[in-house]
Amino acid sequence: MAKSVADYVIDVKDYPKPGIIFRDITGILADAEGFRLSIDSLEEAVKGMSIDKVAAIEARGFIFGAPLADRLGVSFIAIRKPGKLPRETISESYTLEYGTSTVHIQMDAVKPGERVLVVDDLLATGGTAAAAARLVEREGGKVAGMAFVLELAGFEARKGALAGYDVKSIVRYDGK
Amino acid sequence: MAKSVADYVIDVKDYPKPGIIFRDITGILADAEGFRLSIDSLEEAVKGMSIDKVAAIEARGFIFGAPLADRLGVSFIAIRKPGKLPRETISESYTLEYGTSTVHIQMDAVKPGERVLVVDDLLATGGTAAAAARLVEREGGKVAGMAFVLELAGFEARKGALAGYDVKSIVRYDGK
Repeated sequence: MAKSVADYVIDVKDYPKPGIIFRDITGILADAEGFRLSIDSLEEAVKGMSIDKVAAIEARGFIFGAPLADRLGVSFIAIRKPGKLPRETISESYTLEYGTSTVHIQMDAVKPGERVLVVDDLLATGGTAAAAARLVEREGGKVAGMAFVLELAGFEARKGALAGYDVKSIVRYDGK
Repeated sequence: MAKSVADYVIDVKDYPKPGIIFRDITGILADAEGFRLSIDSLEEAVKGMSIDKVAAIEARGFIFGAPLADRLGVSFIAIRKPGKLPRETISESYTLEYGTSTVHIQMDAVKPGERVLVVDDLLATGGTAAAAARLVEREGGKVAGMAFVLELAGFEARKGALAGYDVKSIVRYDGK
């Protein structure tokens, strides 16, 4: 039987801490067929969306977002951690389990009215993706949708931080 | 006249410190044609090399290396900073202007005899790329070549850290 993207994910028990199963996407990347299939699946998932740009979140999001942008023939926006982007940026902070984190986008990354697809490797609470969406919207863009390779559905991001957005994922896990 | 990749690079003066001209590749990414052209040029530059895998260096290297791997139909290895890769890794340290830095690769990333293309956005001294190459070689792989979008030729990496490797770059600056 043909393998699916899920078959390439490596479950790492008790990482980064006891009780957590880390879903390691490097198993997808490590196999030419797995990698191709993941980009094929993302391309298929966003078919029908009107997309002017792909904005991917540092760093694993770049690995999926950049080939997707290349396939779609659109440009690429890097959503990055503080201190990583030259020139003027705007930023958004969001809450983590302990403390907060911040993401930046360049001031001129999005033109008013442009439709931007937000891409990351993993959807959990959706806090990072929601912050990325706010950056796009503050620059006058519209979030065309969001695409993730893996989704931990137990966090219920679709009802929470990402409510109202068109969210796609390739592999969905019921738990957290 | 048709634009070249160089036309999309944004020169940022006095960044990150006075006297330095930072060559900002986000100008390439920000334009659909510029981005496509950069991946076209990388693909053209490595034509004829026998490549089993692309290994790109975190984080900007991912933006060019992942689409290139997708185009070549090969798998992708993430060369990352400490603490970013799950499972067992090996590491190499290298010297920066002040202090040292370290890159990691997963233990099982390269199989003996595999031919790996090392990709990054920028070639300066070549210290990071040389460390990445040592990681590939320690796992029994062979460095098929190295491809960079920009090269600051004034650092003379080709005669220094990268001597003996097949080094390609798209845009070459004479200075540092």
